[in-house]
Amino acid sequence: MASISHRAQKLPASPIRKLGPYADAAKARGIRVHHLNIGQPDVATPRGMIEAYQSYDEKVLAYGPSQGLPGLRSAIANYFVKLGIKLEPDHVNVTFGGSEAVGFAFSAVTDPGDEILTTEPFYANYLGFAASTGVTITSVPARADHAFHLPSDAELEAAITPKTKAMIVCSPNNPTGTVYTKEEMERLGKICEKHDLYLISDEVYREFAYGETPTSALSLPCAHDRVIVVDSVSKRFSACGARVGCVIAKNPILLNVFMRMCFARLCPATVDQIAAIAAYDTPQSYFDDVVAEYTRRRDALVKGLNSIKGVSAPMPEGAFYLVTTLPVDDADEFAKWLLTDFNHEKETVMIAPASGFYSHAELGKHQARIAYVLEVPQLLRSVELLRIALDQYPGRRA
Amino acid sequence: MASISHRAQKLPASPIRKLGPYADAAKARGIRVHHLNIGQPDVATPRGMIEAYQSYDEKVLAYGPSQGLPGLRSAIANYFVKLGIKLEPDHVNVTFGGSEAVGFAFSAVTDPGDEILTTEPFYANYLGFAASTGVTITSVPARADHAFHLPSDAELEAAITPKTKAMIVCSPNNPTGTVYTKEEMERLGKICEKHDLYLISDEVYREFAYGETPTSALSLPCAHDRVIVVDSVSKRFSACGARVGCVIAKNPILLNVFMRMCFARLCPATVDQIAAIAAYDTPQSYFDDVVAEYTRRRDALVKGLNSIKGVSAPMPEGAFYLVTTLPVDDADEFAKWLLTDFNHEKETVMIAPASGFYSHAELGKHQARIAYVLEVPQLLRSVELLRIALDQYPGRRA
Repeated sequence: MASISHRAQKLPASPIRKLGPYADAAKARGIRVHHLNIGQPDVATPRGMIEAYQSYDEKVLAYGPSQGLPGLRSAIANYFVKLGIKLEPDHVNVTFGGSEAVGFAFSAVTDPGDEILTTEPFYANYLGFAASTGVTITSVPARADHAFHLPSDAELEAAITPKTKAMIVCSPNNPTGTVYTKEEMERLGKICEKHDLYLISDEVYREFAYGETPTSALSLPCAHDRVIVVDSVSKRFSACGARVGCVIAKNPILLNVFMRMCFARLCPATVDQIAAIAAYDTPQSYFDDVVAEYTRRRDALVKGLNSIKGVSAPMPEGAFYLVTTLPVDDADEFAKWLLTDFNHEKETVMIAPASGFYSHAELGKHQARIAYVLEVPQLLRSVELLRIALDQYPGRRA
Repeated sequence: MASISHRAQKLPASPIRKLGPYADAAKARGIRVHHLNIGQPDVATPRGMIEAYQSYDEKVLAYGPSQGLPGLRSAIANYFVKLGIKLEPDHVNVTFGGSEAVGFAFSAVTDPGDEILTTEPFYANYLGFAASTGVTITSVPARADHAFHLPSDAELEAAITPKTKAMIVCSPNNPTGTVYTKEEMERLGKICEKHDLYLISDEVYREFAYGETPTSALSLPCAHDRVIVVDSVSKRFSACGARVGCVIAKNPILLNVFMRMCFARLCPATVDQIAAIAAYDTPQSYFDDVVAEYTRRRDALVKGLNSIKGVSAPMPEGAFYLVTTLPVDDADEFAKWLLTDFNHEKETVMIAPASGFYSHAELGKHQARIAYVLEVPQLLRSVELLRIALDQYPGRRA
């Protein structure tokens, strides 16, 4: 029988989704599962966006321009202009979510066998795009006791090889919630200049910052030739199902490549883009309310986790995740056990073991990613369930 | 400055879209351009599909399942069951249009350096996916005087090398309109079995057949292990902007790969899938009307083209394209000249030169793809414009 490709064999299973069948089985047994494992915000999508779907009324749902609707490219550029960044609609190519944008970026700057450097833990799906494009993700560990902030220049530069073509960073970070300071972003820009690397900056969580304002890589001096920004409406507007993102660059050679990539898959979805245009009209008060709500959740969650003996969780500065250290032999086993063997009054929690967010999986063996996309009372109950579960878990360690 | 990747450098410009700027300039000069170049049907999208967008009313536009909404996977499977093909929802993975499905198929069965065999002319965007995945499209010429039907087994088998991992075919065909007979599909299946190749069957034009009913590769004996079908709602429901397609297989190893590919990009767009579910409820009378209309257009176009001295156009059996031979020195130059130098009473036509649909571009030097997605009176006027243009074109040949 014909074999499948080597690259297909390397495609990882999703660390976030692989526990799904166990959760389904738990639910089938009548157990309520509190989902701390997923990045699906529960806040309402802006009403104007929903109404844009409802107002769609064309005779023919036709192809749009390959690079995206002009109105959306303008809306995205204007959004950055308001942040003080000079950007033209022509710098923006609309994609199928941030996911396609990551794939475009990887494919544009690497050939099979090349490397992209990041810090770990990192967003697990980068590994999927790496497998598809034949790229190796190399990574420098970020330390939990430094709240996962940027390792030193020396550590990062030691990991750069002749095959390294780019760095990819995500700030605010999935899975750690870390927001890089302006100085950290500038350090990254300088390292990329020094070693002639592209800087792929995943900024989909920009709106979710609870202290320092995130610095866009587009504001760096090297932005005009080596920065590629990945962005999305998914998290910003709680519209993950719209699957509208973009890849942004100022370098005309990169823009030409992205244009041809856009041509090759014809165009993004038309109605979702119309809805996204409406989303960019969302008033600032929407974001103010969202940030206030997530700040309350973060504070409650971090306080609760750190009150459990043996658990430590750094205070994240952004996004809606954190990576916590757990007093367990193996977080993968613990996460599974929570669904298969544990319940307290017919309730349990689902967490994402951190091993899947590491190149060196063993570094995440005692860690889990917790998303705080639930309201405070449910988060507090989840923390309580974790506390009870850790008391009962046979693989608990001191 | 950091270079872009070799694969990015190989990405082709779209042969269909590269003339766009000349068309825009012609329109700016007040010239009406009749578009024979694009595959955007002008027939109405089923009203139920539009109304599904209008009825969307969730609080949170959330991620859906990675492999697609269960209701859509069922609707697609049921569609095939009605065609007499045994198919389960689990065999169907929903994708961003047929485009993503082609990319998944290429990536699943090839590694960089491998080959996929087809006949030429072929759908130009296969070259874009080939560039992205590092694959070489090899091709055996199909003859215009055989209406672009399948070359002989001997010709096809002579083109198979140790690097060939799959064949890709498209029936009804873009760009030729050819519909392979049942016997031709069976020959393809046998060749793939004999040489242990996958058979990627692009069937997005299945509904557009004006004689022989297209044979799905899913009905072949080898379907259970080596067939991958690419399908889409784009053409079937005149809903190109919905960008909902699917990749179908029965081989569990392939299905596992497609599942992991689906995970890596999270999920398809939610509302577009809801609309697609509604589309699959479209009554047969819709398709009967569409087929009757396209049959009228095809007949008028083929008769008109063949009445021009030096022009020959085979009668296509399906889709809404044909490839015609033109009495010109270079169809690329002619297509450009139509937009830059020609007009008759402030009107001209835009055609897609066929060179971009060939691996061996010179084979298409005197050919163009004509789409008949315009009503009969406009098609007849377009034929008349072509006749006048050919009389005036300085590069006309005998």
